[in-house]
Amino acid sequence: MPIVEQLLKSVPADQVVVDPDIVASYQHDEAEWAPYATPVAVVRPRTAEQVQAIVRACLEHGAAVVTRGAGTGLSGGANATEGCVVLALDAMNSIKEIDQLERYAVVEPGVVNDDLRAACAEQGLWYPPDPASSPWSTIGGNVATNAGGLCCVKYGVTRDYVMGMQIVTGTGELVRLGRRTAKGVAGYDLAGLMVGSEGTLGVITEVTVKLRPLQDPQRTIAGYFDSIVDAGRAVAAVAAAGLTPSALELIDKQCLIAVDAWKNMGLSIEANVVLLGRIDTPGLVGDQEAEKMLSCFDEAGATWSAVSTDQEEADALFAARRLAYPAMERLGPVLTEDVCVPKRHVPEMLSRIEQIGIRYDTTIANIAHAGDGNLHPLLITSHDDEQARTRAQAAFADIIDAALELDGTVTGEHGVGLLKMHGLVQELDPVVLDMHRSVKRSLDPHGIFNPGKVFEM
Amino acid sequence: MPIVEQLLKSVPADQVVVDPDIVASYQHDEAEWAPYATPVAVVRPRTAEQVQAIVRACLEHGAAVVTRGAGTGLSGGANATEGCVVLALDAMNSIKEIDQLERYAVVEPGVVNDDLRAACAEQGLWYPPDPASSPWSTIGGNVATNAGGLCCVKYGVTRDYVMGMQIVTGTGELVRLGRRTAKGVAGYDLAGLMVGSEGTLGVITEVTVKLRPLQDPQRTIAGYFDSIVDAGRAVAAVAAAGLTPSALELIDKQCLIAVDAWKNMGLSIEANVVLLGRIDTPGLVGDQEAEKMLSCFDEAGATWSAVSTDQEEADALFAARRLAYPAMERLGPVLTEDVCVPKRHVPEMLSRIEQIGIRYDTTIANIAHAGDGNLHPLLITSHDDEQARTRAQAAFADIIDAALELDGTVTGEHGVGLLKMHGLVQELDPVVLDMHRSVKRSLDPHGIFNPGKVFEM
Repeated sequence: MPIVEQLLKSVPADQVVVDPDIVASYQHDEAEWAPYATPVAVVRPRTAEQVQAIVRACLEHGAAVVTRGAGTGLSGGANATEGCVVLALDAMNSIKEIDQLERYAVVEPGVVNDDLRAACAEQGLWYPPDPASSPWSTIGGNVATNAGGLCCVKYGVTRDYVMGMQIVTGTGELVRLGRRTAKGVAGYDLAGLMVGSEGTLGVITEVTVKLRPLQDPQRTIAGYFDSIVDAGRAVAAVAAAGLTPSALELIDKQCLIAVDAWKNMGLSIEANVVLLGRIDTPGLVGDQEAEKMLSCFDEAGATWSAVSTDQEEADALFAARRLAYPAMERLGPVLTEDVCVPKRHVPEMLSRIEQIGIRYDTTIANIAHAGDGNLHPLLITSHDDEQARTRAQAAFADIIDAALELDGTVTGEHGVGLLKMHGLVQELDPVVLDMHRSVKRSLDPHGIFNPGKVFEM
Repeated sequence: MPIVEQLLKSVPADQVVVDPDIVASYQHDEAEWAPYATPVAVVRPRTAEQVQAIVRACLEHGAAVVTRGAGTGLSGGANATEGCVVLALDAMNSIKEIDQLERYAVVEPGVVNDDLRAACAEQGLWYPPDPASSPWSTIGGNVATNAGGLCCVKYGVTRDYVMGMQIVTGTGELVRLGRRTAKGVAGYDLAGLMVGSEGTLGVITEVTVKLRPLQDPQRTIAGYFDSIVDAGRAVAAVAAAGLTPSALELIDKQCLIAVDAWKNMGLSIEANVVLLGRIDTPGLVGDQEAEKMLSCFDEAGATWSAVSTDQEEADALFAARRLAYPAMERLGPVLTEDVCVPKRHVPEMLSRIEQIGIRYDTTIANIAHAGDGNLHPLLITSHDDEQARTRAQAAFADIIDAALELDGTVTGEHGVGLLKMHGLVQELDPVVLDMHRSVKRSLDPHGIFNPGKVFEM
């Protein structure tokens, strides 16, 4: 029996999609120029048991399972492989439980990040991880890529909030990993191992995430700079001053121009680079920290700086940060980098990126979680310009080389997917890559989960 | 060539200990009544390369490697198995680097927890995990058991601070896992997998831990209660009030009596149960939170309560907490429990422990990281009283059953070792146990690392 027939017997027929137009819309994520192929079907289950039935069908037929949420990934991790079954979990989007006293939430993988955050806020609780894709991306995808965001400079990444999960294993079993207690060391941290494994070790059907009390009000500290290197110096100064901002974001001239062209905010007239810091320490101590951050900006050469007391103004500045990526996309295909370097190397890294852009005649705009050293150079090309594309890809490779030279990593929060597979080989010891292969074989013995992604077997 | 001869050729001769008296002192950790055997040798290497040479010698001879630090473990995880080589890392105790700007420390595994904390403090930095064993236990052991402590109710456990490490693998290779950047998702979180794996997956030769700025000054809130159930209600009330204490410890009558008998602090005359809370939120907001915690204590029925403004008085109260365990040990063999339950079940769990003590005619004292739901019932027996020992072991098993019934875990922070192996089988799905076995085989293919611990292969 062909796989599609078996899928139709395993789950309700309306969950199995073979219409070529709809299937096409599930073929790839948002990574530019990452290869993808045509799946035999897209399946949109509603329950964990249905996911299990689908995985079992695929096991029987040796069909690859490519799991995806909203498809907002930027590394090609959710791209379809030839003849695979795309397991789309976007319909499994219920928030099962928010426990106010124990401070956790139990959610299905297709719950959108912002929806979870809103539901938590209603109960005075906060789910911190806030990738820029939070209005669209799902918790399952966030877990699969260990997503970061703006506030992780103080509050950590997705990994720091995952307590437990339910998964379908590589042998088609439905099991629970991790815990719902505040602490626990009963066996290996297999739930932690699933975080950031990009769909290669199992299918997540439910996640239990830790919550915090609602965040205290934040002060916004804005600084305008003439050069990206001055701004980088300000970032290092903030760290050296012992401050822990609740956000520290950088937006460069190219992004500001693109945002202005779209939303007419007038930012690019005033600044070449904008730094946006936030401090959420309560009370007077927080006020003092905000002033200290301001001094760091000024001493690094800010041309203008202020602690914003106006919430609307502050929100507008952060809106510009969030709009930077879609604003750049309006200009042409964007190849997104995600390197992360030690904080002290942020100025040097930014300067190397500038040089790489010149060397390859490629426009590179920068948005960055600067306080983490996590930089997102955006390499912009023109539609249908093969030469520009080749130059951009060469620049992309050089940025990876530079990050590794500066003791950085090839991916801070987007994951390896397809675009960083070569980078991973550069970054990891071959012995460690072999350890990856052994672990993969141990948990996915039939090699059905997202084959060909992250590393070659 | 016998293993000892090869060890003598692999590392300097003075590092290989075969003197029976000295070997005997390395045979077991501090777990009561956990079995142990005689190792063929104890080896005390000074470098990662020497660890590698030792592991390679053991691989060649098929000798088991039991790694240990200070031997302060409470589950038997570091107990010698028959014919094994004990790899004692206590001499690898150098702090290689403290990076103030990037906020991390690079340490050898034998560095004592308090020594690292002191060295960090000199640079205005803080390594939070603070197990009660911190004056003696080593970072390597803390990582191997994912140690917790007093402050993890707010600041998390060892896992939350491990960024990367160097290990010797199951094939005798020396490799680096993890990262030194603030973020990173390049490949599987193998460094995280090592945390809490109790020496069964590799030998840690170096650890990079995340640091925080020095902790803000803490206010201490003390409450005296008539009953352990009242105190448990106060703990639940603190969580329900949305407070996040920087410590919330419980000490019961039995412990207070033992501490008084030893140090004459006079606590047991005034209280049956003492709760010690701490708040480190800076400024006025922190003062308000301390008052709020005081109200929680009072409303739960505290017979006396106060926010301590006297640092010496506060330190004395916490000293009583830290002295409780050694004070109990003076009375006879102590079997230490480490269950962790949801916060809302703390009163019920404490009440069940009380009943279990009565049922088995066993004195059970309680110290607890109550704010985490992590309880340490201490089962006290008399020397050379076999019947009392049998009763205590039955009580120990019943406490585990009760914790699992209340959605808890068998070990919050001490690890499985030998004492919780049966509990682990109760707690985990058989499929998940099989996943453990697969992962173990994938990373320790020759089965040399700490065999017979945590789970049966």
